[in-house]
Amino acid sequence: MTQSLPFTIPLAAELAAVALGAVQGALFAGAFTERRIDALGAVLVGVGLALGGSVLRDLLLGEAPVVIRGQWYVLVAVVAAFLGMSLQRLFARLDRIILPLDALTIGLFGAIGTSKALSLEVPAVPAVVVGAIAAVGGSMLRDLMLNLPVALLHVGSLYAVAAAAGAAFLVSLVAVGVTVPDAAIAGVALTTATRLLAV
Amino acid sequence: MTQSLPFTIPLAAELAAVALGAVQGALFAGAFTERRIDALGAVLVGVGLALGGSVLRDLLLGEAPVVIRGQWYVLVAVVAAFLGMSLQRLFARLDRIILPLDALTIGLFGAIGTSKALSLEVPAVPAVVVGAIAAVGGSMLRDLMLNLPVALLHVGSLYAVAAAAGAAFLVSLVAVGVTVPDAAIAGVALTTATRLLAV
Amino acid sequence: MTQSLPFTIPLAAELAAVALGAVQGALFAGAFTERRIDALGAVLVGVGLALGGSVLRDLLLGEAPVVIRGQWYVLVAVVAAFLGMSLQRLFARLDRIILPLDALTIGLFGAIGTSKALSLEVPAVPAVVVGAIAAVGGSMLRDLMLNLPVALLHVGSLYAVAAAAGAAFLVSLVAVGVTVPDAAIAGVALTTATRLLAV
Repeated sequence: MTQSLPFTIPLAAELAAVALGAVQGALFAGAFTERRIDALGAVLVGVGLALGGSVLRDLLLGEAPVVIRGQWYVLVAVVAAFLGMSLQRLFARLDRIILPLDALTIGLFGAIGTSKALSLEVPAVPAVVVGAIAAVGGSMLRDLMLNLPVALLHVGSLYAVAAAAGAAFLVSLVAVGVTVPDAAIAGVALTTATRLLAV
Repeated sequence: MTQSLPFTIPLAAELAAVALGAVQGALFAGAFTERRIDALGAVLVGVGLALGGSVLRDLLLGEAPVVIRGQWYVLVAVVAAFLGMSLQRLFARLDRIILPLDALTIGLFGAIGTSKALSLEVPAVPAVVVGAIAAVGGSMLRDLMLNLPVALLHVGSLYAVAAAAGAAFLVSLVAVGVTVPDAAIAGVALTTATRLLAV
Repeated sequence: MTQSLPFTIPLAAELAAVALGAVQGALFAGAFTERRIDALGAVLVGVGLALGGSVLRDLLLGEAPVVIRGQWYVLVAVVAAFLGMSLQRLFARLDRIILPLDALTIGLFGAIGTSKALSLEVPAVPAVVVGAIAAVGGSMLRDLMLNLPVALLHVGSLYAVAAAAGAAFLVSLVAVGVTVPDAAIAGVALTTATRLLAV
């Protein structure tokens, strides 16, 4: 649509979010031993978490999903999900890793989603919505795949609050003249911190 | 795609449907006291119900979701959802309000979805499908968010019947020469009445 | 996007997949007598199974869903779902029919999805993902509509394995110079056989 974007999302940032999401999803799924998720199932959940929020974001923005059109996203997600599955044996208490990874993944996807919405000239308020949905979309898909109650509403609403706060902060900073990369870093920090403190 | 639409959906009609859906969703979610949905959760459900059917409609039609591209939809949904949440304290028996609101919301979203499909030159039969899905999509999202069994199939199928009947009536009227606004009003009336009588 | 497609999916192949999916979905839903799915509910599940994977595929590819833009898909799905519902009375043991139908439906949707992704110049790895999701998307929608645990992860992951194996086989054959129709037939055969042997 917009041909002269004022900025584009760096590929490295997107791939980092995909990789962290895949590791976290595979770890999370693997921790459900009582549900008999096998190794492949854990990998699938990791890939779903890594790519789900991104696909949802692009659909909301009316764009062809970049994770399908591009070459690297799926590869990175699959490799990272295998890595996450293997890590399970190394760590005795997964909670300590899953939570910070979850917080950082939400922060990254939220900031990327909000920035992409702004770059497509989406107005401020819906841009926050896109960022928040991009942030939590992967986790919602993970919960659907595992047949868990969707965490969004039941873990207190702090998931959504953390995501929306970071997205709104990013939009506000851009509105007062901060560059998008700087505003995005501030948004990631706010969302990650809110999520971590919320426990 | 089609540049010379024979008609467009009036913004006021879409915003009215969004507002009613948000009020109804927040009321509905707030009535689940035993599930410990907090105030913010009720607002999120309201917004989800208000925007979900519309997003699904635009995705099926291959269009960028209007609720994201436009400025007003999200704002109206959030304000109306807060209003719905506040109304809970005013009314002793919410059932009497939720049901008619539900019926009217389904009717409006169905008629808007069907009209938009026709305006994009979707053939008659799939236009009815788009209208029916637009009508019930928000309620399905509400049920998913609340972890309820999706009402579509279990409340008898009358939800879907009401939505499809109104959409089919609208398409038939347009086929015999009735203008779209008049046909849409007839479609809203049929869907709303069917849903109300079905209880 | 790509204007000079090297090949297009034959309409007959898509309609065959839609018809088989609708029959299988309606049979499957009708077999849930204890859940009080009525006749109309069974038809809706059949239509959902028949069209769901196809819609998901087109959304992932950033294309307007063909089942909405075209005339025949919905009609074929509805008629076939009614047929499937009627067949229930003819067969004493539905399992013997549902399973092979399920396997063949997955195979067809997977091969069509993978071929369409390749025709839009999607890279090889995401093309396999699109094919696998197209294959299992309808069944996932069926399970969501029936409030069943999503079969993807719990029936062993063999559903997903069968779908991805066929898609990967198709992509590999095309890469070494086999024509798409021939590769698609091989992909259908591999997915169907894997799914059947996996029981």
